[in-house]
Amino acid sequence: MKVGFIGLGKMGSAIAARILGAGHAVTVWNRSPDPVAALVAKGAVAANTPEDAMQGDCVLSMLASDAAIQAVGLDGALLDRAVPGLVHANLATVSIEFARQMAAAHAARGLGYVASPVFGRPDVAAAGNLILVVAGAPGNIEKLGPVFGAVGRRTAAVGTAPEQANLFKVAGNFMIAAAIETMGEALALVRKGGIDPAQFHDVLTNSLFAAPVYQGYGKLIVTETYEPPGLSLRLGLKDIDLARAAAGALQVPLPLADLVHDHFTEAMEAGLGEKDWASVASVIAAKAGLAPVQR
Amino acid sequence: MKVGFIGLGKMGSAIAARILGAGHAVTVWNRSPDPVAALVAKGAVAANTPEDAMQGDCVLSMLASDAAIQAVGLDGALLDRAVPGLVHANLATVSIEFARQMAAAHAARGLGYVASPVFGRPDVAAAGNLILVVAGAPGNIEKLGPVFGAVGRRTAAVGTAPEQANLFKVAGNFMIAAAIETMGEALALVRKGGIDPAQFHDVLTNSLFAAPVYQGYGKLIVTETYEPPGLSLRLGLKDIDLARAAAGALQVPLPLADLVHDHFTEAMEAGLGEKDWASVASVIAAKAGLAPVQR
Amino acid sequence: MKVGFIGLGKMGSAIAARILGAGHAVTVWNRSPDPVAALVAKGAVAANTPEDAMQGDCVLSMLASDAAIQAVGLDGALLDRAVPGLVHANLATVSIEFARQMAAAHAARGLGYVASPVFGRPDVAAAGNLILVVAGAPGNIEKLGPVFGAVGRRTAAVGTAPEQANLFKVAGNFMIAAAIETMGEALALVRKGGIDPAQFHDVLTNSLFAAPVYQGYGKLIVTETYEPPGLSLRLGLKDIDLARAAAGALQVPLPLADLVHDHFTEAMEAGLGEKDWASVASVIAAKAGLAPVQR
Amino acid sequence: MKVGFIGLGKMGSAIAARILGAGHAVTVWNRSPDPVAALVAKGAVAANTPEDAMQGDCVLSMLASDAAIQAVGLDGALLDRAVPGLVHANLATVSIEFARQMAAAHAARGLGYVASPVFGRPDVAAAGNLILVVAGAPGNIEKLGPVFGAVGRRTAAVGTAPEQANLFKVAGNFMIAAAIETMGEALALVRKGGIDPAQFHDVLTNSLFAAPVYQGYGKLIVTETYEPPGLSLRLGLKDIDLARAAAGALQVPLPLADLVHDHFTEAMEAGLGEKDWASVASVIAAKAGLAPVQR
Repeated sequence: MKVGFIGLGKMGSAIAARILGAGHAVTVWNRSPDPVAALVAKGAVAANTPEDAMQGDCVLSMLASDAAIQAVGLDGALLDRAVPGLVHANLATVSIEFARQMAAAHAARGLGYVASPVFGRPDVAAAGNLILVVAGAPGNIEKLGPVFGAVGRRTAAVGTAPEQANLFKVAGNFMIAAAIETMGEALALVRKGGIDPAQFHDVLTNSLFAAPVYQGYGKLIVTETYEPPGLSLRLGLKDIDLARAAAGALQVPLPLADLVHDHFTEAMEAGLGEKDWASVASVIAAKAGLAPVQR
Repeated sequence: MKVGFIGLGKMGSAIAARILGAGHAVTVWNRSPDPVAALVAKGAVAANTPEDAMQGDCVLSMLASDAAIQAVGLDGALLDRAVPGLVHANLATVSIEFARQMAAAHAARGLGYVASPVFGRPDVAAAGNLILVVAGAPGNIEKLGPVFGAVGRRTAAVGTAPEQANLFKVAGNFMIAAAIETMGEALALVRKGGIDPAQFHDVLTNSLFAAPVYQGYGKLIVTETYEPPGLSLRLGLKDIDLARAAAGALQVPLPLADLVHDHFTEAMEAGLGEKDWASVASVIAAKAGLAPVQR
Repeated sequence: MKVGFIGLGKMGSAIAARILGAGHAVTVWNRSPDPVAALVAKGAVAANTPEDAMQGDCVLSMLASDAAIQAVGLDGALLDRAVPGLVHANLATVSIEFARQMAAAHAARGLGYVASPVFGRPDVAAAGNLILVVAGAPGNIEKLGPVFGAVGRRTAAVGTAPEQANLFKVAGNFMIAAAIETMGEALALVRKGGIDPAQFHDVLTNSLFAAPVYQGYGKLIVTETYEPPGLSLRLGLKDIDLARAAAGALQVPLPLADLVHDHFTEAMEAGLGEKDWASVASVIAAKAGLAPVQR
Repeated sequence: MKVGFIGLGKMGSAIAARILGAGHAVTVWNRSPDPVAALVAKGAVAANTPEDAMQGDCVLSMLASDAAIQAVGLDGALLDRAVPGLVHANLATVSIEFARQMAAAHAARGLGYVASPVFGRPDVAAAGNLILVVAGAPGNIEKLGPVFGAVGRRTAAVGTAPEQANLFKVAGNFMIAAAIETMGEALALVRKGGIDPAQFHDVLTNSLFAAPVYQGYGKLIVTETYEPPGLSLRLGLKDIDLARAAAGALQVPLPLADLVHDHFTEAMEAGLGEKDWASVASVIAAKAGLAPVQR
């Protein structure tokens, strides 16, 4: 397939490389040139303008925020210059509301739009082990099948309205944040009772909680290792707020998301914005008088 | 070793059978006779009185509540009639405060006391796969080593003060309740957005949340299968309140435990006390207007 | 002064009548004609178009929502046709973000903008007893002084940035909602303990809590009188969400507002949207098993 | 009437003086001698032992805690030496559970017991303006009428079970704590938005919130005046926990009390235990990055 790719951050670069590796023809565009060169070295074609990436069978984008998507025109002007019939897979985690706007902007121009946020970090992407959560018209999802198959180990089609994939993703991110909150509180409790938190973590994550989220984030908390961030607390708060906004729009009480939001806000004020989002545990511990907030 | 065993509910019976199977001499006592007979058939000796179970190298007890422990005199009168040097391993989840009282009552009589609550259900116990969380004087824990080895796949010695094992256990139970709350909220959110909750559960518990707690309780919630209860909501609330009491005594804010307590209380009033504690998710869903509360 | 007035709902009509009564020349506009006729009978001039109301010394508007303000063009098109030097006093409770947009839209056209939300209900307005919370350029506030003096018993100038008046107002509304939540919980507690809630309310609101909020809303709760609504629960939720949005933007944790939001959301799902916002107390009572939710 | 009085702290001394002033014969006892002398100077008789205070028509006690009540034997031994028919009015705020124990201990000995906690501080007591919340057998309450009349401006009989008066009182104290929390959050919000908190407080407490609780505690928060304490944060937390315990026993969710408990716990850890309980507002402000915690 002829594939365009816009947005070559760490995740985008890893994903684009997977698609190249599966034998597709990939035209890449990025605001800054270095990531482009790295992919050209692997066989990609460098787009001169974003428009060049809009002329194949499909285009995938991985841009950091609604603003970045708007800046490149993927919500409007750039779509006007796309080849007819193009299908766009947006890999980013965006708000439900923006997902709806994007879907409408594509539909108005006869273009396909598939929301396809992913679970996984860059190293997972490089290994082809992402999970893709996709939603959109079944025909469009089917068309993207070969590309999605190159990107991840599983593609879950979760609905026909694109925003459903984003809702699925923000609900999943909420669960991660809730697990961080849970460990933060439980570890504060046992620590104050004189129990070794590393042992507590070891016992639980080798039994009932033997899952990557608890093993990985728990270890960060126990060892107070919050740099470099996997996901920064600032971006983590943004994700929680996406869940809260979705809950508000759907009229679903989400008190645990509120609790997490409040602790993350407090952590922002404590100067932890650029640390890993697991660092909120240091704020939770400080409430119990346990340790100075990590800065 | 000569082992006494008091309290032959489902868990107690399964554990006593493991000890018998490891070749120890076990004298069992229970308030009602049927479980005694079942173990005698496997080679145990029936005690005529609880006192008979207090004459060996050690005694293990698995009684349902502080009141049951007091009723049999294990916090006082029965201890007066124990053989000198006896070590008592209390397998039950009790409050921090009661654990301290028990430790003092044993120390005053020169008896050993090891708090040894377990993680796992009766079927796990029968398979010898429990995790024992133990705390007490190192010599006493060592003495019980062969028995603990027959009971579980892992014995974690977490402190020298018996109540530390109970704190460890209630913190673990709090984490389970928090995971139930988390799934309850996340599933309500995606359901209201038109996403199949079973698919959401499937994707998450085969990746980031691939752990027994999320797989098992999540399945109960998705299928709304709350009978028969693994742990009843009523007893689940008791466990949460043990965590809250410990947090109060140690002066640790535990807002997530408070949130869970409030939802469980509401579920009690909705008539769910004897359902599985995962049924709190039906109350959470009802708040979002999603379904009638399961009764 | 020559005063324009746009938006003649109950509050708007009462306020416009006060201004007329103080001897000012008032040109009124409203989407529907009946309230216009009522004010013309009191001496007002009927505007043929909203534009006619934009030609005096100042214009006051009292429109129900951001959408209503946009529909009439007060955020743009209508401003283009205003007489130079006009000062606009917006009496509505709007979001901080929209207040900023409004201020910028006026500034861009050389018009004055004073945010001037009010505390009080229509009967309070009719009696001239409103409290006006105003923010904007001091010169503009001063210019509006005679009009404000006719409207309320007190004008509190709280800042030079218009959105500060809106922040002040949403913080005040949050306090009212918090008082309703407080009474809902306290009354549920005493009721379940067999205490007469009317007596509890009477004792407290004749001593420590002898304030209109507790006296008035408390009485509604005790007598379960939620119709007709003073402020509907639906609009109350909107106000709480304005406070939450402001808190999010300013990075201030506001857990009590979150709690109230969740209970109001639940009450919306229970069908109470058009009842008085004090009816959230019936949802709080139902959690304690006390009474069926009022519908 | 012949009245005994046990416990001459600030409140006790002020109340005993009122009873003396109304012409009753008062026999007073206190652990330390100075307050006794002060009341003897006003006409009281000094008791040599607590027993001496138990020989009249009634005895009132104002002791600081359950432990103080137990230390003097008012839950048992001292009651054995009371004159037959004595009625005891316990003015202290005790737990529901302890109130039940006290009632049973008196009933078992044929003595009357009236729970009679008060709203008001020592200066209010000295002026005879307390509000007494009383519960017990109607005959006993009636018998105490002349004494209660001398003590307060209002006696509210709220139930026949003594613990009901204590429930009433802890629910009232919860409302005060909730008002402090509310002001803490609202003031943090407006302060961060650049609004003068003193002005915010002034406007609100001269209108909708024109009540002593908001006027008094709000002023402490606005001026950050937390010493000397009216009620210390440590004792305030104890009161909140009484409300939470009552809520737990009655199975009433009380999420706002939980929120307050968590903030008070955090404030304890921040070293504010001996400051006024309004100082929790400084912790709330610190979460928003507003000010260092007051120490």
